Amino acid sequence: MSYIGIRHIFWTVIPSVRQHFGFGAKCNVVLYDFSAEPGNNELSVREGETVTVTNQNIGGGWIEAQNSRGEVGLVPEDYLEVSPVLASPSNSRVPPPPLCPSPSQQTSNGGGDPWSAWNTDATGGASNNWASKPEGTQTGRSAAPDPWGAQSHPQAYQGPGAEEDEWDDEWDDVKSSGYAESESGEGGAFQRGGAQGTAMKISLNKFPGFSKSGPELYLLAKQLVKGSQKLSIYMGEVGPVWSYPDNQLDCVVADPKKGSKMYGLKSYIEYQVTPNTTNRPVNHRYKHFDWLYERLLDKLGSAIPIPSLPDKQVTGRFEEEFIKMRMERLQGWMTRMCRHPVVSSSEVFQLFLTYKDEKDWKTGKRKAEKDETVGVMIFATIEPEAPDLDPIEVEQKCDQFSRFTKAMDDGVKEILTVGQEHWKRCTGPLPKEYQRIGKAFQNLSSVFNSSGYQGEATLTDAMTAAGKTYEEIALMVAEQPRKDLHFLMETNNEYKGLLGCFPDTLAVHKAGIEKVKEGDKLVATSKITPQEKVTMAKRVSTMSYTLQAEMNHFHSNRIYDYNRVMQLYLEEQAKFYETVTTCLSLSHFFSLSLSLSSALSLLPPLVSNPLF
Amino acid sequence: MSYIGIRHIFWTVIPSVRQHFGFGAKCNVVLYDFSAEPGNNELSVREGETVTVTNQNIGGGWIEAQNSRGEVGLVPEDYLEVSPVLASPSNSRVPPPPLCPSPSQQTSNGGGDPWSAWNTDATGGASNNWASKPEGTQTGRSAAPDPWGAQSHPQAYQGPGAEEDEWDDEWDDVKSSGYAESESGEGGAFQRGGAQGTAMKISLNKFPGFSKSGPELYLLAKQLVKGSQKLSIYMGEVGPVWSYPDNQLDCVVADPKKGSKMYGLKSYIEYQVTPNTTNRPVNHRYKHFDWLYERLLDKLGSAIPIPSLPDKQVTGRFEEEFIKMRMERLQGWMTRMCRHPVVSSSEVFQLFLTYKDEKDWKTGKRKAEKDETVGVMIFATIEPEAPDLDPIEVEQKCDQFSRFTKAMDDGVKEILTVGQEHWKRCTGPLPKEYQRIGKAFQNLSSVFNSSGYQGEATLTDAMTAAGKTYEEIALMVAEQPRKDLHFLMETNNEYKGLLGCFPDTLAVHKAGIEKVKEGDKLVATSKITPQEKVTMAKRVSTMSYTLQAEMNHFHSNRIYDYNRVMQLYLEEQAKFYETVTTCLSLSHFFSLSLSLSSALSLLPPLVSNPLF
Repeated sequence: MSYIGIRHIFWTVIPSVRQHFGFGAKCNVVLYDFSAEPGNNELSVREGETVTVTNQNIGGGWIEAQNSRGEVGLVPEDYLEVSPVLASPSNSRVPPPPLCPSPSQQTSNGGGDPWSAWNTDATGGASNNWASKPEGTQTGRSAAPDPWGAQSHPQAYQGPGAEEDEWDDEWDDVKSSGYAESESGEGGAFQRGGAQGTAMKISLNKFPGFSKSGPELYLLAKQLVKGSQKLSIYMGEVGPVWSYPDNQLDCVVADPKKGSKMYGLKSYIEYQVTPNTTNRPVNHRYKHFDWLYERLLDKLGSAIPIPSLPDKQVTGRFEEEFIKMRMERLQGWMTRMCRHPVVSSSEVFQLFLTYKDEKDWKTGKRKAEKDETVGVMIFATIEPEAPDLDPIEVEQKCDQFSRFTKAMDDGVKEILTVGQEHWKRCTGPLPKEYQRIGKAFQNLSSVFNSSGYQGEATLTDAMTAAGKTYEEIALMVAEQPRKDLHFLMETNNEYKGLLGCFPDTLAVHKAGIEKVKEGDKLVATSKITPQEKVTMAKRVSTMSYTLQAEMNHFHSNRIYDYNRVMQLYLEEQAKFYETVTTCLSLSHFFSLSLSLSSALSLLPPLVSNPLF
Repeated sequence: MSYIGIRHIFWTVIPSVRQHFGFGAKCNVVLYDFSAEPGNNELSVREGETVTVTNQNIGGGWIEAQNSRGEVGLVPEDYLEVSPVLASPSNSRVPPPPLCPSPSQQTSNGGGDPWSAWNTDATGGASNNWASKPEGTQTGRSAAPDPWGAQSHPQAYQGPGAEEDEWDDEWDDVKSSGYAESESGEGGAFQRGGAQGTAMKISLNKFPGFSKSGPELYLLAKQLVKGSQKLSIYMGEVGPVWSYPDNQLDCVVADPKKGSKMYGLKSYIEYQVTPNTTNRPVNHRYKHFDWLYERLLDKLGSAIPIPSLPDKQVTGRFEEEFIKMRMERLQGWMTRMCRHPVVSSSEVFQLFLTYKDEKDWKTGKRKAEKDETVGVMIFATIEPEAPDLDPIEVEQKCDQFSRFTKAMDDGVKEILTVGQEHWKRCTGPLPKEYQRIGKAFQNLSSVFNSSGYQGEATLTDAMTAAGKTYEEIALMVAEQPRKDLHFLMETNNEYKGLLGCFPDTLAVHKAGIEKVKEGDKLVATSKITPQEKVTMAKRVSTMSYTLQAEMNHFHSNRIYDYNRVMQLYLEEQAKFYETVTTCLSLSHFFSLSLSLSSALSLLPPLVSNPLF
């Protein structure tokens, strides 16, 4: 067990001992003002104040701190200057993207929406890949307490479940394998730390020689890998397509359980994954999904965009909320992987879904980590049925896909941005206003009741009912986003992540194309033989078929997903407006025309105001 | 024709001549930044900049100005430092309440809502009468151009139609009568200048002796006015009520026409007023309504709350808009007056509605202005059928009504405040957001169209349709307030005005009660005879019956009006939500489940994401 491992566990488990070490856990300086919400065990702190961290394992981006007056309560971790102790996890494998809201951002943030964290990442992570203009999306927590948004804070989650995953002994197992170096790379690590929205990261140094020569490794390989399973591409109605299995693989991620080890000192969450093939559940922890992601990335990443896992930046102030959200997104990720014929049929993916026992799993892990056919060499296993393509055509395809994915990335981000603002309005100011309208009606109604005038009830009953109706509407409005907007956002967010992978995938192709372009020069300078030049062109054509098959897979899934989510969104919206209509139609006022005349029986019929 | 009259016309008509006088129209300093809205002939100005007023008769609170660069355009009059020229009308009879938005207010103001002006007045005017806490309602114009609110600005209207009314020769006619002094009182004038929301103003000095002895004039009158028509109060189911006519009087205010006099130098608006009794239309200008208001106030004000006329502070950047709004509110005022048995049967009101010709009108005016039975003496014409009341009971009634009207005033203002904010949201940010959602869907849809993938249309047609639907919803949302909230606001605003009259009416009663209380002392000090003390108690009981009849009239009308407007509001709201439901239900997506499978025909059926 590594020193870091020990130290971490040590800090996590016995905070009281911290003081003895010079880590200065005692003096955490507050970076921003934070005013506690009543009833949430929160602690109000002022910028510049120093507090003592009494418990950093609260989760949901919150820590328990004690101020100089001895008051103890929860404070957003991001609001505190990172002390060595708090920093330790960050300095290590997966540093969480900084989520500290700038004072200006705080105010502009509305009722808890799960996407503020994503979008921050979008501007940070994704812009590494696209030259995309900043979206100006905000993160941070609403400065003003918000009855509809208060429960969920867009804070980074670094609860025990997440952190300890990184540091238990099994990671050392992993490190002992040839896999370690890929973990140490800060760059890669940071990418990984990003949200789903972050691009797939192909750490070039992972592919021996790749960083030197890029796709040449494949283009100029003397002989291609033998015996490994072949991936065939055939010509479908829409062009090159992967060969799809007759029975679509799928799985269900469910039933998260809290496990513990080291005499209960360390706890973790295990999810039950049940494939529709065996129907036999297997248990996996987040770090196992993470391991799977790494393997798929190494093996298929050059040919197939492998979207990042849902990372730790999910909303969820409370552990249950966080676990639910993470499970939902792990489910989404697995479903997408299952849908992909190459991924779902891959040995490592099958291992993940169907391993028999611990031994089987460990053996499979070792094997997968020793797999040689990684990086660009995956193209060596691909066999298009179609004739070779002209390099110019290859380049055109590549550029066309590049344009499309870039344009879609912009479109998706536009929806995420407006969706986020809409979420805030619908969970914040709008329902508040409906509630105030309801209250105003009821208040006036109760004043009327005090008139002592006969026949008052006919009016006031109806007015009170109307007031209550608007209070109901307020609740409906505030609840609605979780019923429709949520899925629209999740889907677009998933696609933002997927689209973020394409630049890397396309880069591999572009590099190949460039190599072929300078084929003559290379022959002239006898860097390659004329035969090798022909082989390169042939192999680049294989790369292009792969890309086309991949794009067709992307398009068909995109059409399917957007049909589903748009349909769901509009259906739920229609249902919402219908419900409101019903509520309003049930209002007592519609039966009042008669009771009115009786209320005024003592007066001659009044002429109505022509205004109405 | 008075000097003021001349000067005003002079400035109004021949602005070019202004420079010759040292009034400094040339150097109007800009008080606030104002950014022009494109296409509205507006002129952007910066705080501190000086501009030349080139035309102050634009109306709607706008003036034409030229900046140092020679650019000419419209600027809100309130944004300019008031120069002597601009000040001249304000220094005279009706100074418009200051509507200059403070910089902080500007930002918080949304799409043009007609009530910001009212509410300003509410805090200013009405708080003279109730000790009501400021409502913090804002006036001013939206700093950011707003596609839904741009046409109407909550600026004070001081267009020619309004101003010149005050200053034509006929006012001098009026002044030549004994009516002048009531006009000169700045206090009274300011009250009058206020919105409908302002309290009815009983200028005490109008009642000879009143200011000295208040209701004693009536309580101690040796003998009561002879021969004048008697007003009887009988006991109805609900207590004392006025005797109501068999046929309810009503009238229609319509067909505003622009007239002009003085060789076309001065223009005015004439409204056609048609009573349901004669069905013969008579023409009246705003100042005639104003004159009628003054007469009713003098004659009945002590016993009956006479709501102020809709004043000049109505929205309407363009003259047509202003005229329409004023007519709508004059109609509302007349309808309310017609509904009141005492007002509608009064000689002056009948004259107003049914005069035969100019001569008939002028004679009637003179007579009305010479009427002696004004102020508290109106009580002398009231004959309750019921027995005298015990002074304690009188006081209780008075206090009860005082509490009720105060409470209702608060309730009404609450509705006006929240309604105003709701109006801004519904005409501003909300529809903008729906529009952006619509645009985002359409943008993504057009990106999808560029994929060149077959079966794309099934998705994109539906997505584009959905996008268009949300743009339609945006328009519907922005239009809705004019269909429902408008009437809710107008009614509550009318009642705010009416309620503002009660403190004065109740004050007269309280004064009477106090007088009776000190009856014994007065007798002891032989200021009055024992007989007079008995008479006072008797007459205070008459005042109390009057108040009760008035309150019962108020209650029955209130129930009627609020039933109507609440019913209308809820019906329109239900219609709105129903329409949106229909729009959404027509979405192409509901027929997509099938077309989807065809779009994916080339793939095996995909397993749906369990998320959905």
